[in-house]
Amino acid sequence: MNKIVFGVDVGGTTVKLGVFTADGTVIEKWEIPTRTEESGSHILPDVAESILRKIDEMGYDKENIIGVGIGTPGPVQPNGVVRRAVNLGWGYMNLVEILENLVGLPVKAGNDANVAALGEMWKGGGQGFSDIVAVTLGTGVGGGVIVQGKLVAGATGSGGEIGHINVEENEEEACGCGCKGCLEQYSSATGVVRLARKRLAMDDKPSMLREGELSARSIWDAVKAGDEVAIEVAERFGHYLGKCLAGVAAVVNPEAIVVGGGMSKAGEIMFEYIKPAYQRFSFHATKDVQFKLAQLGNDAGIYGAAKLVIGDK
Amino acid sequence: MNKIVFGVDVGGTTVKLGVFTADGTVIEKWEIPTRTEESGSHILPDVAESILRKIDEMGYDKENIIGVGIGTPGPVQPNGVVRRAVNLGWGYMNLVEILENLVGLPVKAGNDANVAALGEMWKGGGQGFSDIVAVTLGTGVGGGVIVQGKLVAGATGSGGEIGHINVEENEEEACGCGCKGCLEQYSSATGVVRLARKRLAMDDKPSMLREGELSARSIWDAVKAGDEVAIEVAERFGHYLGKCLAGVAAVVNPEAIVVGGGMSKAGEIMFEYIKPAYQRFSFHATKDVQFKLAQLGNDAGIYGAAKLVIGDK
Repeated sequence: MNKIVFGVDVGGTTVKLGVFTADGTVIEKWEIPTRTEESGSHILPDVAESILRKIDEMGYDKENIIGVGIGTPGPVQPNGVVRRAVNLGWGYMNLVEILENLVGLPVKAGNDANVAALGEMWKGGGQGFSDIVAVTLGTGVGGGVIVQGKLVAGATGSGGEIGHINVEENEEEACGCGCKGCLEQYSSATGVVRLARKRLAMDDKPSMLREGELSARSIWDAVKAGDEVAIEVAERFGHYLGKCLAGVAAVVNPEAIVVGGGMSKAGEIMFEYIKPAYQRFSFHATKDVQFKLAQLGNDAGIYGAAKLVIGDK
Repeated sequence: MNKIVFGVDVGGTTVKLGVFTADGTVIEKWEIPTRTEESGSHILPDVAESILRKIDEMGYDKENIIGVGIGTPGPVQPNGVVRRAVNLGWGYMNLVEILENLVGLPVKAGNDANVAALGEMWKGGGQGFSDIVAVTLGTGVGGGVIVQGKLVAGATGSGGEIGHINVEENEEEACGCGCKGCLEQYSSATGVVRLARKRLAMDDKPSMLREGELSARSIWDAVKAGDEVAIEVAERFGHYLGKCLAGVAAVVNPEAIVVGGGMSKAGEIMFEYIKPAYQRFSFHATKDVQFKLAQLGNDAGIYGAAKLVIGDK
C-alpha cells in the first residue's frame, strides 16, 4: 500500500483539503466551510473530523499515512505556535499539538503564503529549483522564501513577509499594518487600484479606466490594450515590486522568483514592468534570476502543506 | 585523541589560520601572507602547505582531523565554485576541489562575510541564537544570513549581500558596484565619511569634524562628544541602516542582528541611531529582534570557517 499525506489550507471562508501520494499526485481534494464563530474553536475539530472520515472511506490504516500539513493565515512559529490569527478568530495556541491530538498523526504547520510557496516549488512554477522567492499578489502581498528546499519560517513565523518592506519613504497613507510605504500599498491588487485612482484624479487624460468598475483586472486589460494611463500605473507597480525583489534577492540570492496570487492571472506582461526595476536595482550576482508564473492557483496551499509534512523524504 | 578542525580566512594581504577543537576552543592561530601575484595561484598551495606543516608539528593523523573550512572574498557557490575574486586575482575555479586535493581532507568554503557571520553565531555576539543576520560595517557593508543554524549562501554565492540593497533612489553618486543608492554608500566606514564631507560642505556650522582627519572613528568620537554635525551624520547612517535591516528582517525574520566590522568599535551608541528607523519601518512580528555587537573581531572568519566544516556535528 502506497503511503498518503494530507494537505490542508485554512482560509477565512473555506478550508481546502487534499490527499496526495508521497510523490505529489493528488488523489482527491475537497472543501469544508471555515467556522470562525466562537473564536474559531470549531476549525481544527472540523478539519480533524473531515480527515478521519476520509481515512475511513479510503480504508487506510494510520501506519500508511505520513501525516497532515496545514497552512493558516498569519505568523506560525516553527514549533506550531500561533499568537493570533485575526481572520479566524484564533488567539494564542499551539496549532500542531492540538491537531496532532485530534487526528493522532504527525502534523506540521506553516503560514499560508509560505506553504503556498513550498507548493509552487514542489509542483508548480518553481519546479526544478531549490532556492526560490515566491510572491503572492492578492488583496495583499504575501511571500515565501525557500532556501535549499526548506521554508524560511523565521523566528516568530514571519519569514517572507515581503509585502511589508518599505519601498517609499514619502507615502502619506497608511498600510493595513500601520506603517507607511509598504510594498503592499503599490503592488497588491488593491494597491494598483489605489494607484490608478490617484493617477486618474491628477488630470483629465482620457483612459479606459474612467469607464466601468476599476479593478486589478480592468487595469491589466487596459495595459494590454495600450491605455497610457494604465501603463503609467503598471510602471509604478513594477518599479516598486522590482526594486523590492532586487533587495530580497540580495538577502537570499534565489534561483527563481515565482509570482502568483489573483493578480498574476494578468500573465507574463507583468514581468515587462517588474524586470526593468529589478535589473536597475539588483546586485550583479543576482541579475540572472528567472521570473516564473505560479501554476497551482488556489491549490498551491494544499500541495505545499502536504510537502511540509513529507519534508525531504 | 580529540578531533581538530582548521579554519582559514583569506584576505587581500594576509591569510588567517586557526586550529580548533570540535567544540570551538582555539588551540593556535597564525597568519601567512596572501600572495596575489600570478593570478593568485600560490594562495591555496600556501594555505595547504601551512596546514600540512601544522598537522605534522602537532603529531596528528588525518583520521583525527574533521576538515578545513575556508572563507574568501566575493561570491562562493555552495559547491565551492568561485567565478572571480578580484582582490585575490582569481578567475573561475572550484576552490573546494583544489584545496581538497592539496590537503587530502574534507573542505567547505564560503564567502568571507557569510563565514564571519557563522563564527559570530557560534562563539561571538550571536551565541545562543540559530537565526541571525550579521552586518559587517567596514570599508564596505558585508552581511551574512543564518537560518536554523545554517548559512544562506544563495544560488550564486551572494546570500547576505545587504550592502547592495537600494535604500535611496535619489542618490547621484555611484557605489563601487555601479548602482546608485546602495546601503554601503551611507552606512560603511567610507559611507559615513562621505556623508560627513557632504554635510560639512553644506554650510559653515562649527564642528569638531572640521579639524584633523575625517574618519569613521573621528565621526563617532564627535557623536559621543555631542557634536551636532556629527550627530546629523549618525542619524543618516542609522536611518538607512535601520530601514534596510527592517526590510531584511521581513524576509528572514531573525532572532538577532549582530553588528560587526571595524566601525562597530564605536560600540552600543550606534544602536541609538539604528533602532529608531528599524522600529519605524519594521513589520510588527519582527520588532522584537535583539541588536548585538559582534565579539570576535578579526577572528570571526576563522571561527566561522571551522564551524562551516563541523556543520551540525
